[in-house]
This record gives sequence, C-alpha cells and structure tokens, in this order.
Amino acid sequence: MRPSGREADQLRPLKITRNFTKHAEGSVLIECGDTKVICTATVVHGVPRFLKGKGQGWITAEYGMLPRSTHSRVDREAARGKQTGRTVEIQRLIGRSLRAAVNLKKLGENTITIDCDVIQADGGTRTASITGGFVALADAMRVLVENKKIKENPITSQIAAISVGVYKGVPVLDLDYPEDSNAETDMNVIMNDKGGFIEIQGTAEGEAFSDEHMMGMLAVARKGIAEIIEAQRAALFDKE
Amino acid sequence: MRPSGREADQLRPLKITRNFTKHAEGSVLIECGDTKVICTATVVHGVPRFLKGKGQGWITAEYGMLPRSTHSRVDREAARGKQTGRTVEIQRLIGRSLRAAVNLKKLGENTITIDCDVIQADGGTRTASITGGFVALADAMRVLVENKKIKENPITSQIAAISVGVYKGVPVLDLDYPEDSNAETDMNVIMNDKGGFIEIQGTAEGEAFSDEHMMGMLAVARKGIAEIIEAQRAALFDKE
Amino acid sequence: MRPSGREADQLRPLKITRNFTKHAEGSVLIECGDTKVICTATVVHGVPRFLKGKGQGWITAEYGMLPRSTHSRVDREAARGKQTGRTVEIQRLIGRSLRAAVNLKKLGENTITIDCDVIQADGGTRTASITGGFVALADAMRVLVENKKIKENPITSQIAAISVGVYKGVPVLDLDYPEDSNAETDMNVIMNDKGGFIEIQGTAEGEAFSDEHMMGMLAVARKGIAEIIEAQRAALFDKE
Amino acid sequence: MRPSGREADQLRPLKITRNFTKHAEGSVLIECGDTKVICTATVVHGVPRFLKGKGQGWITAEYGMLPRSTHSRVDREAARGKQTGRTVEIQRLIGRSLRAAVNLKKLGENTITIDCDVIQADGGTRTASITGGFVALADAMRVLVENKKIKENPITSQIAAISVGVYKGVPVLDLDYPEDSNAETDMNVIMNDKGGFIEIQGTAEGEAFSDEHMMGMLAVARKGIAEIIEAQRAALFDKE
Amino acid sequence: MRPSGREADQLRPLKITRNFTKHAEGSVLIECGDTKVICTATVVHGVPRFLKGKGQGWITAEYGMLPRSTHSRVDREAARGKQTGRTVEIQRLIGRSLRAAVNLKKLGENTITIDCDVIQADGGTRTASITGGFVALADAMRVLVENKKIKENPITSQIAAISVGVYKGVPVLDLDYPEDSNAETDMNVIMNDKGGFIEIQGTAEGEAFSDEHMMGMLAVARKGIAEIIEAQRAALFDKE
Amino acid sequence: MRPSGREADQLRPLKITRNFTKHAEGSVLIECGDTKVICTATVVHGVPRFLKGKGQGWITAEYGMLPRSTHSRVDREAARGKQTGRTVEIQRLIGRSLRAAVNLKKLGENTITIDCDVIQADGGTRTASITGGFVALADAMRVLVENKKIKENPITSQIAAISVGVYKGVPVLDLDYPEDSNAETDMNVIMNDKGGFIEIQGTAEGEAFSDEHMMGMLAVARKGIAEIIEAQRAALFDKE
Repeated sequence: MRPSGREADQLRPLKITRNFTKHAEGSVLIECGDTKVICTATVVHGVPRFLKGKGQGWITAEYGMLPRSTHSRVDREAARGKQTGRTVEIQRLIGRSLRAAVNLKKLGENTITIDCDVIQADGGTRTASITGGFVALADAMRVLVENKKIKENPITSQIAAISVGVYKGVPVLDLDYPEDSNAETDMNVIMNDKGGFIEIQGTAEGEAFSDEHMMGMLAVARKGIAEIIEAQRAALFDKE
Repeated sequence: MRPSGREADQLRPLKITRNFTKHAEGSVLIECGDTKVICTATVVHGVPRFLKGKGQGWITAEYGMLPRSTHSRVDREAARGKQTGRTVEIQRLIGRSLRAAVNLKKLGENTITIDCDVIQADGGTRTASITGGFVALADAMRVLVENKKIKENPITSQIAAISVGVYKGVPVLDLDYPEDSNAETDMNVIMNDKGGFIEIQGTAEGEAFSDEHMMGMLAVARKGIAEIIEAQRAALFDKE
Repeated sequence: MRPSGREADQLRPLKITRNFTKHAEGSVLIECGDTKVICTATVVHGVPRFLKGKGQGWITAEYGMLPRSTHSRVDREAARGKQTGRTVEIQRLIGRSLRAAVNLKKLGENTITIDCDVIQADGGTRTASITGGFVALADAMRVLVENKKIKENPITSQIAAISVGVYKGVPVLDLDYPEDSNAETDMNVIMNDKGGFIEIQGTAEGEAFSDEHMMGMLAVARKGIAEIIEAQRAALFDKE
Repeated sequence: MRPSGREADQLRPLKITRNFTKHAEGSVLIECGDTKVICTATVVHGVPRFLKGKGQGWITAEYGMLPRSTHSRVDREAARGKQTGRTVEIQRLIGRSLRAAVNLKKLGENTITIDCDVIQADGGTRTASITGGFVALADAMRVLVENKKIKENPITSQIAAISVGVYKGVPVLDLDYPEDSNAETDMNVIMNDKGGFIEIQGTAEGEAFSDEHMMGMLAVARKGIAEIIEAQRAALFDKE
Repeated sequence: MRPSGREADQLRPLKITRNFTKHAEGSVLIECGDTKVICTATVVHGVPRFLKGKGQGWITAEYGMLPRSTHSRVDREAARGKQTGRTVEIQRLIGRSLRAAVNLKKLGENTITIDCDVIQADGGTRTASITGGFVALADAMRVLVENKKIKENPITSQIAAISVGVYKGVPVLDLDYPEDSNAETDMNVIMNDKGGFIEIQGTAEGEAFSDEHMMGMLAVARKGIAEIIEAQRAALFDKE
Repeated sequence: MRPSGREADQLRPLKITRNFTKHAEGSVLIECGDTKVICTATVVHGVPRFLKGKGQGWITAEYGMLPRSTHSRVDREAARGKQTGRTVEIQRLIGRSLRAAVNLKKLGENTITIDCDVIQADGGTRTASITGGFVALADAMRVLVENKKIKENPITSQIAAISVGVYKGVPVLDLDYPEDSNAETDMNVIMNDKGGFIEIQGTAEGEAFSDEHMMGMLAVARKGIAEIIEAQRAALFDKE
C-alpha cells in the first residue's frame, strides 16, 4: 500500500558512515533510503557574545541543500544572498534538539557547530540531519575529551528524530518524498533514548487531524526512534 | 502558585476589538492579558507566481514586534535589513494555520495578507496573532462577499491558538512571560472549532517531557481553545 | 473649503496619551485627527562608536509604518530587507530635531532611541512623530533623573513640529491626507518653545512657491506650534 | 572674516564644463571652488512601473562620492552594500528639484537619470549637483529633440541651487567646508529663473535660528541664485 | 622532494564517478587525491534575459564549499548573505571555461547550470570543478539528445584543467594543499583536447616569476592535461 | 588594420597626472587613450583583523565605474546593494598586483587602500588601474616617509600592467574597446621593472589559442610594459 512497499511501521534502510570527510572533529554521512546528508561537527574555542562569561558552551546548527539535491534545482542560497524561511526553521530545530543532548556547563566555553548538508533529498532531510548530527556531535565530544580540552563528556542523552504521518488514513513511519507530498498529516518527532520527547511538530496538510491519528503517529514514531537509537549506538560503539 | 495567581487551566483576560484601524479590510486589536497585537487583513486581487492560473487564492502572514514592545529593546528588523529566524518561523506558522481555515478555491484569485504587529509583549504573541488574525481574516472575507468579489464565504472552519506548558511540574494554560521563561516545556496548539488539530509544536526547555505531560497539556489546551473559539464568535457575531 | 471643514489655521484634534505601553522608559500615543503614532523612548547606557570617550550622550530615532496603516498596504520593510528612502529621510529628521532639545553633555554617556511607529496614517506622520517623540523623550529623561543616572535634566527646550501647505492658493495648517495629496506646496516646520526655528523643509509640488506663500505658511505654522507646545506641556505637567 | 576671505554674499568661482565625458547624452563637470562634481544625464526609452501607460516621462537622480573625495576616506557604498541615509536624502532632493524643471508629459515615455558623482568635496556638493545636473539635463533634452525622439523641449524653467548659512552671526552665501562645519545654521535653497522657490531646507546646527536670520539667508541666496542662473545660461547658450 | 612524494610531473590519483546522485541530468563526483567535488548539471528550458530571442543557449556555473570541507571551518555563504570574492571569481572561471566546450547555437534556448560543491578540499578545487563539470555537462548533453530536445550534441571539444606551480624552484604538477600554500608561483591552466589554451591564470606569490618558470609550468601542465583528458574519456565512454 | 590605425605593438597615448585631487595621500588621473581612471591612495594606521600583531602592513584595492562611464549606463553598484562579479574580480587583481610591489614588513602596521574609479571607459580599465594605482601608491609611500611614519620606503619594485590580445589573427598591444569586443583572445599581463611576471590572465574568447599566439602576445606585452614603466618613472621623478 505504501509507494515503497514498506510496512506502515517500517523504516527505510538506515546507514551511518562515520569519518566521512577528514577535516572535521565529527563527520558523518547518514543515508535514510535515498535521502543522504553530510553532518559535520566543528569545535571552536569561545562562545557567542550572549554567553560570554557564563561558564558554559553552545551548540548551534546550520542546514543547506545542494542546489540539485532535489527533483528540480533550487536556487543556491549563497547566490540569492538569503536563506529561505524553511532553511531557517530547520536549522533552528536541529540546534535546539541537539542542545537537549548536552550539559552545556560541562562543555566549557566551547562552541560546536553542526553543519548538515543535503547531498540527495527524498523526504525526511531534517530528521536525518538531527539523527546524523547527533553522531557527529558525539564524535566531536570524544575528540574534546581525548585532547583533554574538557574533563568529562558532556553528552547526557542520545537524541534521534523521525518523521511520521497519516497516509491514506493510516499512520506511517519515515515518509519518503512520494508519501510526504501526499500525506494528510506530517509530524516530526524528536526523542531521547529514555523515551522522553524533545520536540514534536505536527501539521495538518489539508484536514485537521484527530486525537486518534496523533496517538497512532506517536506509536509508530516510538518504534522507529527505538530502532534509530540502536543504529546510532551501533555506529558509535561497535563499528570503530 | 502561578505568578499571576491564575488557576492552572485559566486563560488571561481576552479582549478582541474589531475595526481597530480604519484602512484595512479587517483590523483587530487582540489583548491576552498584557500581550497586545494588531492584526490586519489586506485583500489584493491576484496571486503569487507559483499559483498563477490555478484558479485559487492565497493567504499569507507577516509578523513583527515594535522594537520596544519587550522588556529590553530589540533591533528594528527593517534597520537590520533582515528578519530574525524567530520572526520567519512565526509568520510561517501563522500563515499555515490560517490557510487551514479557508477553501482557497472559493477565494478565487485573491491574496489576503495578515499582518500581526506586536504592540506590547507578555508571552504568547504567536498564538494571539493566530487567534486575532482569524478574526481579521473573517472580516476581510465578509468585505469580499459584500462587495460581490466572491460568491460564497470561503471560511470552512474557525481557527484558534493557545500556548500551554509544564510549569513547576504542572500543565498550565496560556503562559505569560514570567511563566514562559521558566517553563520546563512549552507547546503551541492550534485547533479548529470541531476539535481537530491544525498544528502542534511542543518543545522541551530543559528536561524531555513525558506522555503524561503531553496529555495534560493537551487537556488544558482543549479547554482554553473552546473558550477562545467562543470569544472569537462573540466578537464576530454578537458585538457588531 | 478644506475637505475637513476646518479653518485655514485650525489644527486637527490633538491627543497625547502617556504610558501607552508598559516596558519603555517613555511611551506615548499621539493622535492628530486620524493619524496615530506610538512613540517610545529607550535608554541604554553607552554611546555609538563615533562618540566614545567624548563625555556626551546621543539621541537617535527610528521610524516605521505598520504595513496597513495606509490606504493600500505598503511592503513591510523588514521583509524587503531595506528601509525606503522616505523612511531614512524621516528618521534622520526626527533624530536631528530632538537632539536640538537636549544638552548632550548633561545626558552623560547614555543613548536614547526614539521609535516612532505609525499605527494609522492620515497625513503629517513625521511631524506627529517629532511632537510625540519629544514627550516620550521628556519622560525618559525624568526616569534617568529619578533613578539618579544623571544629575540634571538635560532638556533645554521644548520641540514641536507641524506641517503647513498651500491648498487652493491659501496657506493652511496641519494638512490631512486629502489635502496633502492635493497641496501645491508642503512645508514641515519644527520650532522650539522660544519661537526659534529648528528645521524648515518646504517643497513645491507643482508650481514654485512665492515669498508671500512662504510668509503665509510660516504665520499659520507659528500659531499651530504654539498650540502644540501647550498640549505637550499639559500632557507632561498637568495630567500625571 | 570668512576663512576664504570672501564677502558675505560672494560665490566661490563657478566653472561649468560641458561634454566632460564622451558617452552620456549630457555630461558636465561643475566646479564650485574646490568642490567638483561630474553630472551625467542618461536617456532610456521607457518609464518605471508606477508610470506605465500614463503617457509621461520621469527624471530621477543618483548621487555618490568617490571614497577619497573627502578629508578622510569614506567607505565605498557599493562595497558596504548600502547607500547611507545622507546619500539617499541627497539623491531624492536632486531628483525632486530637477523634475520641477520639466513638463513630464512633453518628455513622453522616456526616463532620464542624472548621476552626480563627487570627485572632490569642499562643501555644497548637493547644491552643485543640482546646478550641474540641470545643465546635463538640458543637454540631454536637446539630444532628444535633435534626434526627433520628442517634438518639443520639455524644459519649462531653469533650476539652480545654493547653500547659505549663518556664520559667526552673519548670513553668508555658498559655504565651503571650513564654514559649513562651523556654521550655526545651514540652509539649501533651490529656486527657478523666475525667482520662485522649489525647495528650502534649513537646519539649526546648535541654536535655533530666528526670522531675521532666515530673511538674511534668503536675501543672499537670491543674489547667489541669480548669478548661478546666469552662469548656467552662459554655459548652455554662449559657449557651444 | 614533494610533500606527497610524487614526481614533479605526477598527477594525484584521479577518480571520476558518474551518476553520483539521482536527480540531476549529469552528476559527477570527482576525486583528485583528497580533493572531492560534486559536480551536477541541470538543464532548464529558456535563457537569461540578455540572450532572449538570440536563438542560442547558455552555460553557467556556481561554486561552493561545504563549511567544513577545509582545515578550519569557513563561514557558510548562505548565512553570511554573500558569496566571497574568491567564490565569485572561481564560478566565473568555471562557466567561461565550459562555455568554450560548446556550440551555444546548437544548444538551442536551453540553460545548463553546473553546480560544483566541494565536499573535501586539499588544493585544486577550481580545476577539479572544471574537469568534473565537463563530464557532468557531457552527460546532460546526452540526455538532451536522447530526449530529442536538441538534434545534435553541441559539445565541440573536451575541456580539462589543472594547477601547476613553482615549488622550491621546480615546476610541479597538480599542487595539493601543503604545496599550494608554499608555492612561489601558482598557475591554473585550462586546455582543450586539441592542445589549445582556453584560459591561463598565473600568479606570483612572492617573487615575480621568469619566462623559464612559465615554460616549465606549461610543460608539466600539458602532460597533466593529456592524462586528465584521457581519464574523462574513459569515464564517459568506457565505463558505462 | 587596427580600428585606431595604430601599429600592432603601439600603445595608446598615455598620460599620468599626479595630485589630481587634493585630499588623498596619492591621487592620480591616468589616461590611456579615451580610458580615464582616477586612482587615489589612502593611508590609515592599523591593519585588518587577520593581520593583527603580525608586524606588517596591508595594501588593498577597490574598483568602480561611474554609471555612465560606458556606452550604455550600468547600474550603480551602491544602489543595487552589491558589486558585480566582474568588479570583485578586478579589485582583487589590482590589490594582489600592487602588494607585489611592496615589502609589507617595512610598511609597518599601516593599511593603504587604492581606489580606482573609472570616469570614462574605452577598454583596458583594469590594467590602467594597476598602472595608475602604482603611481598613487608610490606617492603615498613618500608621504609616509616624509612624515616619519616609516623609516624606509617599502617599495621594492615598480609594477605596470597592459592588455594584449589576438585581433584578426595578429598579436596586438593595448586593446581599445572596438578591438577588445572583437578580439579572439584577451590577455592581461602584469610585470615588474625587472621583467618578471606578477600575473598573467589569458582568456580565449571563441577559439582556443596556440603557443605561438601566446608567445606573440607576451612579446608585445613586454615592449608595452617597458614603455609604461618609463612613463611611470617620468611622472614620479621628472615632473614634480
């Protein structure tokens, strides 16, 4: 019934490749089916002005799409001289979500920038960015600890994200582009490894959605998040 | 227990003044406690380029804060030459929510712009903008029908919004600024008059939030939305 | 003979409301007939770079119109990313005029920003901004003195502004929009309470204007300014 | 008594060189003492959008200073990405003043752009731009008539501009930079060849100025304008 | 003697992967040692305004670096709101070079945009972009021919590029970052498959360079270009 | 055979006027035939951030064209809010070339900005800017030495630039606009007074160019540069 033939609660194949490029403190290629995003983590000593002297660090994120990562080419934002509203919204969401994974006091006066650049888009680029960005962030934290820049790893919980929706009346997990563009409702769910919610953003695309639909979407989201958390853990601990 | 002394599920005093300024097709001053927003609706014949020739209309929104609507002055975005990420995010939310109230086909090739300008801020400016913006939109639709620009009123449902949160462990309704800046979780809920969800955006501010908290927040939101829907109706039908 | 039925030298009803919003050090709603402007004064410790270490303060002004304060909606400057030439010109005039009211040495190293935001426009928004801005400025100065941030009130004179013009060959006072758009000449006059000129800007709109017209316009301006000075004084001293 | 040794009502040496560069329809170098401005007039068929289909033409102006035309270098506006408020104000004044010289109906659907670029600044660059810009405009009109693009020369009057001020208590004509930076009052006067006023902009620099000072400034302005009008005429008619 | 141990006239390992992403008409990953660039070609029907109605097509290029493609992170140009001078210079060079490969008349009124996005930088990103961009362009042309949008393949010659330099007094081929940042002279050479020059840009980095050095650099460039031309051909014809 | 009737290796009349304007430390009008550029040098104490504390100075350049310096008016970059790619490319070339003339250590922590503003364009404006810019730079260095801001003149060599090209199959020197727009190849050559190359930028305009053409262009360039070097020397040493 789904265009991809998947079960309603089935994720797309998920692949997380660490050390994808060589310069960044953390560098991850995340592939969720045909969606491919490079997530890098850059550590810089110092904090933005509004945090000066507060004895804490900062996590921020930036997001971009290569102009031809999509079906038809989108304008290069650098050439337009302006990020779109969608980009701004997404990078704020990524930053907010990843800050929830970290004790900023333990990070000291360091700033970590997570860059999420979409190489190929097929739905779910923002949730892939959060999931992959967490792995890059975790790698950067290890570098900080190994280099004795900080004493203790400031990661307090693991963060993962997934999109869910209502497609032909059924709650489904991990929408790809053909589903995303036809779903009645679209919801991004960001959770931690203890099952707590970090952020929920649900939007009715045509009809309003009911309590029942929301409960159904949350149920498939919970299943998907558990699998993604597992995949992150495997990438971070088993594969090195 | 709340700084304002309100009950956990009690709204702030809500006042909706129509025809607040004289030029716009719809012009509303909405006051939610000390939060005051001017919402105007402007009708222009024609549609944006991406809708040309599709035989439908468009609803869009813009949001701004007077520089000294807040405790300390914020930079004037027109002088900075750029809207902040927060502004962009809010005006996209307002536009999306209000489009859910309208049959765009019945609107014909007309564009309605909802301008929400915050005169005084005390928490909840984005939800006040949606609630007040709906009333301005409804007035503009009446003008279109009265002037025979369209045959039928394209409003399909009534839309209202409210913020809820978890404050000192308790789900509370309609956060003011002192609560908003100390809440553990903050959630904006936009619903229609049939009890369907249009949009939900919940964000953990420190700790992740639980299912139980979410259910609690949705419960107070539902109560608040019902009262706001009533107040909008009173403003639109009884008071004229 | 005037569209409004006023005498040639008659002001529109003038209303000055202090403490209009709650956060600013000075906050004034000025209403000149249907023209309504919110003027706030914000005090910040410190001065712009070009005044660093000179032992003096600074007064600056910013001006904006709500997009639908006018007959047809004007683009939101924050969204366009640029203030129009008209806006720039007006806010420079407001700042220059209000600096003439103040001994900047006595202000110490403080900067006061006057924000003038037009809620509803019906001609004369720039002169209303100066007149209302002066009252907001005076309130901010009182706050500075009361809080012992400065020893002495730095206000040296009272400043008021009015537009005059030649309409159907006759010099008239305080042009509203229908007159303004049809006047042969338009002149903004800013004066102090001792009858001295702070700034004069007269523009022929079609025909050049003669000495005689100028003398006539100055005469009605002088009468109007005297009444406005009185109204400011009443607002500042009697009504509190 | 004046730094330059001039009489109170004496102009600086004024030199107008036509055909200064070879590409423009009108190209003038105007030298007022050490102030040197290149004024070119460019004719393009067509009008700005707001005039489409109204059967009239348009005159607009742009102003710039070479970065090192002044004592200390000013930022190049093209590199900053923004014109300063002062520039915007000046180019609006030039455009408005020159439009007063022209019957725009007779110009047909043509747009003339006057570019005023200051090569060397020593006070009075905006009035030099208007005076020189008029000559460039007149040359462009002749080209249009000679090339039979229009039937009749649309110039209706001759426009000239001068700055006057109060320096050490005395009204003086044509301020150079040392005077300009010390004058108590500064006034720009734009008039036509029939003695009518096109625009007056007077600004008190410290003290307010009196009626008497204004009358004194207008008297010297009138004398100066008459001489400038004569010089323009000589340049346009005798020297070719 | 070279940091990499290569011979003076030895290229880095060169790998060209076609069909790297799935949406673009041409999509190439080019790897020159550790320098990795994604080059995509996008075909759009229509031409820029300055070519309307001339019966020809257009090739243009855009270039960007992922923020952490380099040793230390560079600002995201989309966030700064401006492309750097270096970026502008590079993308103009890429566009100019690739237009030399094409008969624009035969392309018809189509525009091809080559996007070159650097994933990992280690010297020579602009020449890699040209070499890889040509392959993406060639693929896009095949698509146009296969889809019968044009009759004949408009490619007239094969274009490749390489950097050469003088390092420790010796002309060397294909500088990597450690060489590039220490070379006395740096020259980019773009040639076609007939041995003709398309563009040469040589810059002395400290000392001026001599005729002898130039001849030496051209000699190694010629050898390198021949090998690159061969590699492009293999990628385009043999591997499919 | 050349449109101007010149020999293949003949320069246009070259005129260098020092002290062209009065404020700058160096101010030169350079005229190469009908191409006229004002080059000024401004000295400011201090260096850009990336050189702080390195005990050296900096040379930078900016370039602009008056809007009507060309056949048809180009947009004023200050009004567009953006410099074109061409402008950025040119000003980077001028700065790079002139830095090659200077020992930046001996300059101390001073920054010299060379402003090149084209008054009239007829081909070769970038090379004229470099040639004239060098003379302005040399004058500024003398001022620094005379005012004892630095001990020793930091100029290490003389820099000059010329364009050459292949026109109707023949290598020619110093292209004017009619040649430039029809040349098959266009090459800018920047050399010092010892015959070393500072920068070479050659571009094929239609056909690729051969070794033989390159050798021919370099030969005429060498002849032209020698004459220009002589003219700079005459301007700097003989004429004062």
